Amino acid sequence: MSSQPRKIENVAIIGLGLVGGSIGLAIAEHAPDITTKGYDADPKVRARANERGLAREVCETSSDAVNGADLVIFCVPVGKIAEAAADIAGSLGDDTIVSDVGSSKQSVARDLAAALSGQTIIPAHPVAGTEQSGPDAGFASLFENRWCILTPPESADEAAVTALSEFWESLGAKIEIMDAEHHDLVLAVTSHIPHLIAYTIVGTASDLEDVTRSEVIKYSAGGFRDFTRIAASDPTMWRDVFLSNKPAVLEMLGRFTEDLTALQRAIRRNDGEALFDLFTRTRAIRRSIIEQGQDDAAPDFGRDH
Amino acid sequence: MSSQPRKIENVAIIGLGLVGGSIGLAIAEHAPDITTKGYDADPKVRARANERGLAREVCETSSDAVNGADLVIFCVPVGKIAEAAADIAGSLGDDTIVSDVGSSKQSVARDLAAALSGQTIIPAHPVAGTEQSGPDAGFASLFENRWCILTPPESADEAAVTALSEFWESLGAKIEIMDAEHHDLVLAVTSHIPHLIAYTIVGTASDLEDVTRSEVIKYSAGGFRDFTRIAASDPTMWRDVFLSNKPAVLEMLGRFTEDLTALQRAIRRNDGEALFDLFTRTRAIRRSIIEQGQDDAAPDFGRDH
Repeated sequence: MSSQPRKIENVAIIGLGLVGGSIGLAIAEHAPDITTKGYDADPKVRARANERGLAREVCETSSDAVNGADLVIFCVPVGKIAEAAADIAGSLGDDTIVSDVGSSKQSVARDLAAALSGQTIIPAHPVAGTEQSGPDAGFASLFENRWCILTPPESADEAAVTALSEFWESLGAKIEIMDAEHHDLVLAVTSHIPHLIAYTIVGTASDLEDVTRSEVIKYSAGGFRDFTRIAASDPTMWRDVFLSNKPAVLEMLGRFTEDLTALQRAIRRNDGEALFDLFTRTRAIRRSIIEQGQDDAAPDFGRDH
Repeated sequence: MSSQPRKIENVAIIGLGLVGGSIGLAIAEHAPDITTKGYDADPKVRARANERGLAREVCETSSDAVNGADLVIFCVPVGKIAEAAADIAGSLGDDTIVSDVGSSKQSVARDLAAALSGQTIIPAHPVAGTEQSGPDAGFASLFENRWCILTPPESADEAAVTALSEFWESLGAKIEIMDAEHHDLVLAVTSHIPHLIAYTIVGTASDLEDVTRSEVIKYSAGGFRDFTRIAASDPTMWRDVFLSNKPAVLEMLGRFTEDLTALQRAIRRNDGEALFDLFTRTRAIRRSIIEQGQDDAAPDFGRDH
């Protein structure tokens, strides 16, 4: 659909945690001509957001925050999007673009379309974050050199997609456009299953009778500590991700379990060759991730030794 | 068993990769009165070890390297220890302490006792490393503030245990003494299973039909890249670890799989409460690991953003 060029001059950020706060700080640093208004359902978060300047104006209601906005970005757990969208349904301008930052996109597209029928909706997902959460966690460079995936519906206004792309590029992100179903499959393997596995092994390690928790902590430098980082991520956000992207998560989990069972069998049968072959193949992926700037080249993630 | 105090003045390092090389460099930096001789089966590694000064003298045979040594440390994959020990069997002094750095301890204890009967054998495991390997990977501070586990047999000479403990402490490590069976169980959960899971998910992600390898790499910042680090570790070393610590690895893998299946069931049944409860519990472990100096407190392992 061709359409008039759109200009994003006023952005409303709904939810002022790690990602919402980082958007506000990144706009202030990289696109200072854009005005930001922010809202968070938690009054304590609003107070702290105000102190840190996460938005130029922190509003007392989400309706106030979206008033006059060209772009509204929901930065709340995906399980809260339907309710947050319903709250602002009457307060949007006709041309306001509605977007989000959630980790699953099919459920978000459904929820936003149901609550805000007739509005221009372009779900998005910046693939960036840390294990920290809340209004103190955000920082301006979070999106630099990270991919932001847009999943516009087929009917989406082209000018709106262009405007949203340019907005994210101005914060340092690189843009990819794909359909929501494919996004959910890709992210199941690159993000959701890794989190699920990390949460599981950290749980397994805490529940052993023969190995104490203190031992697990002391000897965590043998590999375990790498998993504890993502297992310290926000519980509400991740509960919602697994429930909202259930089919893709279960599909990928099934494949992972098959592969793990094959490896278990190789160990039981002393099949060193099968182990060696896999362990050799997996090195190449790390090399590519570093070459493409998606991770630090320094050993141990550049941890201070 | 009480005994004469022992003094470690001459150390032989057999195997000059990440850990062997780091021992040599750490001695040069922290205990320069100790003389080091080194050997590696690979002539290219010996040449590079010589250039980097990983040992004061790099020898052409392992017998030459252990000649006159108070302490011999095997730093080879655990599957190679029996052969490496047999090679020096005739060249050790009566009082030479024999140790190693392997990640599984029951099999090492058996192999060393079989090859070097009558010698003072004290297996050890510094819980430290990076994903890199080879003669260029080592650095002097690798063991600082890391635990080194000693697994002396019950009959071990006390003075030898004390001397080996003091040696590792002089390189910056903290000492723990436990029996080999318990070591193998603890390390199965804090190190071996994390590596096995990481290798598996990286393999799973590379073999998908519906998600390209390029997509896996691009969106790896969503969590996956954390797993690729340890899945880039040395294939020979890790093959040997899994085969040599089979019972404990299979036991812990069984527990992990049970826990993962329970989580899978919770997702399938939309049991958000079960997910939330686990995800909340796992945060505490990360906090303790950071408090006890076993990982970086900075978000994202302190990666450069």
